[in-house]
Amino acid sequence: MTERRWGVENLPYGVFSRQGEAPRVGVRYEDRVLDLSAFLHDEVFATGSLNAFMARGRHAWHDTRALIQTKLTDDLSLAEPHLIPLDQVTLHLPIEVADYVDFYASVDHATNMGKMFRPNAEALLPNWRHLPVGYHGRSGTVVVSGTPVTRPSGQLRAGVFGPCAKLDIEAELGFVVGVPSAMGAPAGAFEDHVFGVTLLNDWSARDIQGWEAQPLGPFLGKSFATSISPWVTPLEALPRVPGRSQDPAPLDYLRRQGDWGLDIELEVLLNGVVVARPPYRSMYWTPDQMLAHMTVNGAALRTGDLYGSGTISGPEPGQRGSLMELSWNGTEPIKLPDGSVRTFLEDGDTVTITATAGGIGLGEVSGTVR
Amino acid sequence: MTERRWGVENLPYGVFSRQGEAPRVGVRYEDRVLDLSAFLHDEVFATGSLNAFMARGRHAWHDTRALIQTKLTDDLSLAEPHLIPLDQVTLHLPIEVADYVDFYASVDHATNMGKMFRPNAEALLPNWRHLPVGYHGRSGTVVVSGTPVTRPSGQLRAGVFGPCAKLDIEAELGFVVGVPSAMGAPAGAFEDHVFGVTLLNDWSARDIQGWEAQPLGPFLGKSFATSISPWVTPLEALPRVPGRSQDPAPLDYLRRQGDWGLDIELEVLLNGVVVARPPYRSMYWTPDQMLAHMTVNGAALRTGDLYGSGTISGPEPGQRGSLMELSWNGTEPIKLPDGSVRTFLEDGDTVTITATAGGIGLGEVSGTVR
Repeated sequence: MTERRWGVENLPYGVFSRQGEAPRVGVRYEDRVLDLSAFLHDEVFATGSLNAFMARGRHAWHDTRALIQTKLTDDLSLAEPHLIPLDQVTLHLPIEVADYVDFYASVDHATNMGKMFRPNAEALLPNWRHLPVGYHGRSGTVVVSGTPVTRPSGQLRAGVFGPCAKLDIEAELGFVVGVPSAMGAPAGAFEDHVFGVTLLNDWSARDIQGWEAQPLGPFLGKSFATSISPWVTPLEALPRVPGRSQDPAPLDYLRRQGDWGLDIELEVLLNGVVVARPPYRSMYWTPDQMLAHMTVNGAALRTGDLYGSGTISGPEPGQRGSLMELSWNGTEPIKLPDGSVRTFLEDGDTVTITATAGGIGLGEVSGTVR
Repeated sequence: MTERRWGVENLPYGVFSRQGEAPRVGVRYEDRVLDLSAFLHDEVFATGSLNAFMARGRHAWHDTRALIQTKLTDDLSLAEPHLIPLDQVTLHLPIEVADYVDFYASVDHATNMGKMFRPNAEALLPNWRHLPVGYHGRSGTVVVSGTPVTRPSGQLRAGVFGPCAKLDIEAELGFVVGVPSAMGAPAGAFEDHVFGVTLLNDWSARDIQGWEAQPLGPFLGKSFATSISPWVTPLEALPRVPGRSQDPAPLDYLRRQGDWGLDIELEVLLNGVVVARPPYRSMYWTPDQMLAHMTVNGAALRTGDLYGSGTISGPEPGQRGSLMELSWNGTEPIKLPDGSVRTFLEDGDTVTITATAGGIGLGEVSGTVR
């Protein structure tokens, strides 16, 4: 069993409420939530999202984190009145999502998808190694872990309407923007804008997507729901490693800004059984490159912008972050311990994605199909 | 010269301010703005966007419009203290944009694009007549008419970075959602959700888009700016006509809800010269069909959602709503009266889209390239 620490080296931010009380900002410490508005006497934490705090910028993020660490370490008794057991709170969507963008940054995932959909051509399209391919998704249907997901209906092919028969998941990381940038110029450094990381499940209706997506990309095949974890882990808490080597060398504006190949191990559980362990460090495009790309045309950033990494798949079969890949488009069913098999999701199935980064926990994003 | 009336039969809503004052909601009446918060004593109009008013729903929209019409008609002198000349106000972005979706609903536009990009294949892709193709765009870069547009830079092809050389416009209508819908179920009737119509210019960098858009659709080629008119015309003010005939007959969920083939004539002006007159009634997919499609998978609507019709092009060459089509991808330059020619936009060019609907004005959306 993977170790997951929730001590002062972790301290992810979220939004919680106790029954009858308004949602407000806290950090998770061990199995409790520290009520920050009460503990730090700062109104920025008395709101129902992290946005106002995130807008303060990286120096405020650093100083606040350091202050909490010091206070918890020096004299825990002062914090005790403001530490609420997790089982007494409801966790909410932690951010007010502005724009939601999803990338396609795993070379193993893109290669697998290419092999399945274009068996007689190069697996990777010509642009893939030159830029991080991405698209805009629907921010109004980003929901917090635990929200049930209704199986979407739609056009599955010409003249055929019905419930999606190829309901899938995509195990991703989501990067949360705190500091905005002006329209008409590229954004600044990655760590000046990005506050932290969530787990993200980009639910996907493969049949709807397959029929609708030419020439303008995914639409209803993705827009029905995107789930994120309730905890946003600050960049400072994450273990950094160099990104995967890139060939050809990226253009100047895409040059890496540092070691942002985060060392995060994900686990995908289907009805409680681990079916994959995607490693984030295997990604081709790193999050600093994605941010630079997203804004190089002068597109402004806003507080609350969320961008997904795209499905995280490693080179090994057991590291694939979607059922599409794990079952090879349904041709190699996944065997579960109870003797049942799965290609895509059935009604009642629960998918949970968890992660650990250098031993610290990132929580989970979970959803049940109804 | 096209007649454009701004009397009680029109009354579009917008957000204005006088110098030193906070933005608030008004309606345009002739060449003045009626200050609604002062005139109607309703705090919903004292805010900087139409969203709160739009959320009240169609009965409130109807009653408010009828009340204003009655008051202006019965005794204009009571309104006089609250009518401010247009040249004394600044007009702002009228709505707080939630999600922005853009469709591709003109059969003539889609056919033209197909002929240019896939000359050896069917002009329309197989899905086009079965569903209104659409995608999500960036809501954070939707700006009001008059905002300058910075020419975007980006990857133009493999290994080549630079300023966009094929900067284009797309003349569209934008539909503004007032009443939200719940996640997990389709939305209700079109007129129960959609408040009104804006003019929309979907600025497009054709070279950036061409290189990036496989397989996930347009991204940086569109996300740098989308301009809308400051006035939102209520549905009630617009002349309705039957939509264009459709073959094959659409699936049940896409069946038309009434005559929503709005009779709106657009004009596209390049540096003051009319270069196209796109007719909205020539569109294949009507806005009620687009709304039904967008939500059939259970995607929720929010107040402030904005969806574009896609480029409006009629069957005649002079009715095309993009420079790409008007110059046939640069091979047939457009001649301007001063002797100059254009294929795509040059720095300093100003594009203005205006429209009239049964004689009433819809205002304009304008932008200058810098």
